[in-house]
Amino acid sequence: MEIKKYIEENERRFIDELFGLIRIPSISSLSSHKPYMQECAEKWCELLLAAGADRAEIMESDGNPLVFAEKHVSDNAQTVLVYAHYDVMPAEPLELWNSDPFEPVIRDGRIWARGADDDKGQAMIQVKAFEYLVKENLLTHNVKFIFEGEEEIGSPSLNAFISKHREMLRSDIILVSDTSMLGADLPSLTTGLRGLAYWEIEVTGSNRDLHSGHFGGAVANPINTLCEILAKVIDKDGRITIPHFYDDVEDVPQKEREMIAQIPFDEKKYMEAIGVKALKGEKGYATLERNSCRPSFDICGIWGGYTGEGAKTVLPSKAYAKVSSRLVANQKHEKISQLFIDYINSIAPEYVQVKVTPMHGGEGYVCPIDLPAYQAAEKGFAKAFGKQPLAVRRGGSIPIISDFEKILGVKTVLMGFGLESDAIHSPNENFRLDIFRKGIEAVVEFYKEWE
Amino acid sequence: MEIKKYIEENERRFIDELFGLIRIPSISSLSSHKPYMQECAEKWCELLLAAGADRAEIMESDGNPLVFAEKHVSDNAQTVLVYAHYDVMPAEPLELWNSDPFEPVIRDGRIWARGADDDKGQAMIQVKAFEYLVKENLLTHNVKFIFEGEEEIGSPSLNAFISKHREMLRSDIILVSDTSMLGADLPSLTTGLRGLAYWEIEVTGSNRDLHSGHFGGAVANPINTLCEILAKVIDKDGRITIPHFYDDVEDVPQKEREMIAQIPFDEKKYMEAIGVKALKGEKGYATLERNSCRPSFDICGIWGGYTGEGAKTVLPSKAYAKVSSRLVANQKHEKISQLFIDYINSIAPEYVQVKVTPMHGGEGYVCPIDLPAYQAAEKGFAKAFGKQPLAVRRGGSIPIISDFEKILGVKTVLMGFGLESDAIHSPNENFRLDIFRKGIEAVVEFYKEWE
Repeated sequence: MEIKKYIEENERRFIDELFGLIRIPSISSLSSHKPYMQECAEKWCELLLAAGADRAEIMESDGNPLVFAEKHVSDNAQTVLVYAHYDVMPAEPLELWNSDPFEPVIRDGRIWARGADDDKGQAMIQVKAFEYLVKENLLTHNVKFIFEGEEEIGSPSLNAFISKHREMLRSDIILVSDTSMLGADLPSLTTGLRGLAYWEIEVTGSNRDLHSGHFGGAVANPINTLCEILAKVIDKDGRITIPHFYDDVEDVPQKEREMIAQIPFDEKKYMEAIGVKALKGEKGYATLERNSCRPSFDICGIWGGYTGEGAKTVLPSKAYAKVSSRLVANQKHEKISQLFIDYINSIAPEYVQVKVTPMHGGEGYVCPIDLPAYQAAEKGFAKAFGKQPLAVRRGGSIPIISDFEKILGVKTVLMGFGLESDAIHSPNENFRLDIFRKGIEAVVEFYKEWE
Repeated sequence: MEIKKYIEENERRFIDELFGLIRIPSISSLSSHKPYMQECAEKWCELLLAAGADRAEIMESDGNPLVFAEKHVSDNAQTVLVYAHYDVMPAEPLELWNSDPFEPVIRDGRIWARGADDDKGQAMIQVKAFEYLVKENLLTHNVKFIFEGEEEIGSPSLNAFISKHREMLRSDIILVSDTSMLGADLPSLTTGLRGLAYWEIEVTGSNRDLHSGHFGGAVANPINTLCEILAKVIDKDGRITIPHFYDDVEDVPQKEREMIAQIPFDEKKYMEAIGVKALKGEKGYATLERNSCRPSFDICGIWGGYTGEGAKTVLPSKAYAKVSSRLVANQKHEKISQLFIDYINSIAPEYVQVKVTPMHGGEGYVCPIDLPAYQAAEKGFAKAFGKQPLAVRRGGSIPIISDFEKILGVKTVLMGFGLESDAIHSPNENFRLDIFRKGIEAVVEFYKEWE
């Protein structure tokens, strides 16, 4: 049976299975959601076995459990390792969702839910391509699946896990569907990812909240101080001021900058889509360079003092921020993490106590476009989308990709099918059903092309 | 009966009555607490009637109801108007309280609860002094009480109310017990108060939260921008940078600076008490000047992005702050409010939208120390505390005090009995029982001394 027909006949079931996964709120950053992690892992085991795996099992790690499954075809065949994650981001702010984030609905040809794209929907593409090949006796590769439950919190346990299970994970190429394309009509493959470093900062002034009338003007306010400290991290040219931050950054080669300049990109539409009148970033770099090939520094969250209704005049004791930096290939996240801590400590004034806690991090990644597996994926995209895909670097981070290379010695091909409009990590995350179908076709084609 | 004996015999009842008031969580900044405001006002009516008022009633305003009560002695007698407030601050952060903020307990000779001092405890001092004078037939003045329920949110309805009820509130002096003393062994009367201006700032970047990997470095982060804006409001010398902010500030006269320098003040102990290693404020002014005679600028609250457990990488759509400035005599809060709005708008970058909303404000106040009523209060303090009280300016704001003078043409004497250790507006607010007793004695003595 042709893949298109197979999808058509089975799509209702594919969606039901995906909905079952989405309904489990497997938010890895909330410790209260631990039971859902187990439940979601069990659901994937069932689905992988049903899709044709010889075996599928839950494996313990130092954190959330992982799912491992495999189908062995021949000792002489090449082995594909499919990596995905079953955990999702928190859904807050809940009031901005048009429907329940964990009760998926189909509307306007899209699935609306947390995880619809990232990464339950995209992982399902891989599983359904595999199912088709098994059921139609077309599979000529050994296939392994490793799905983890801590990607959205930086995969803290995966490193130890893959080091421990090197033999089990032995493979010739890794496939990951967890990135996005330039557009539905502009298929692309991601060849570079940014790394990440993440910290929490706590600034303490007085040992308790003070009356701002009795103490205001005499004692440091930790929120004011936190703002002053954070305002220093980026200079007026959009450059990060942490000493030695740029030491290991490789400048984007001129040839690649020219390629980036050729990517169809309408800055006006881009601004309209996100509702801003002007963009902002590092001087001397184009927007598509700044969000993919250059590091960034963002305050992801800030809080302190009175944040309720009305006006409370208080000089608070503490102020907090969660901050992160996207890194580029060759920047080591542990080094950057320490540089930031040293810098903040060096500028912290004596009238407050500042504590910087590193949260998690990961290195960036580059995939060479002359890799045979990359070229097979390129053909898959071309067949499914009817257009040669572009090779682009992206700004997001999948820290584990560089770890796979370091620990397993295997390259990864990033066959991601997301779109910017999918709103991953945001309210109203969604995934287009037409993309879901084409994604399955593209992966099937990869298996046919790769030898 | 002597006042000391009267207190001894009735103290259990005084405390029970105060506890009854405290148990009503009359938090004016929470609209959900409206029913408690009515309940608390009704409780005060009962207590004022029981204390000896001829009449006590609840009066409507544009906001929370007010309590008015009076005792008429003679058309030829001088009239005292006692102002207090029955509303309290929110109790957050709740986890830092050692006992329920709205279930008062006595421990170590103190009452622990929100409102124990500010202002239920202090208002009770006035009412119990009045009760004693009535019951013992010692009252030679007419007495009026006006208790409002919006002081902690800036008394938005009181101005209109007192303008409307000028005749009812006609009086020769106003007494207010809502300030604090330098120490339990260092009695003092407040002769100056700071004014206040308060704003909320909203900074909007993109129209939705964005993935910090896909957009970080290309698009402005409103939290970063908010920090940059707020960091500009105070310069490295601790001066407020809002243009024309200091135009109307009267420099502290040299003579008053010399008096301030004579106030016993142990900076080391002050720092130890609040747990800081260094103080911070405007260059060129002593600590006791900075927190009373000089304006200040504080961020009272800040929030935006992800503030939950763990690490979420997000480039948020919005960031908020609540900010306030303490003003000194002669600064007009409405003018300052507009100057701040103009300044923030002038420095707001084009890549975000910044909205500044003025919340509330009030002018400062100065009470001349040669006023006969001030001198009667001074004698009251001297008798009760066994020591001549110092006249000091304080940093807090009771905006209504300057309004009383403007609208009713009446001066106020600030007979406040709070201590710094009372932790008003903070977790574990408390009020010392010995001070409560001495306060009643001091007020009784005021009535005896003032002619």
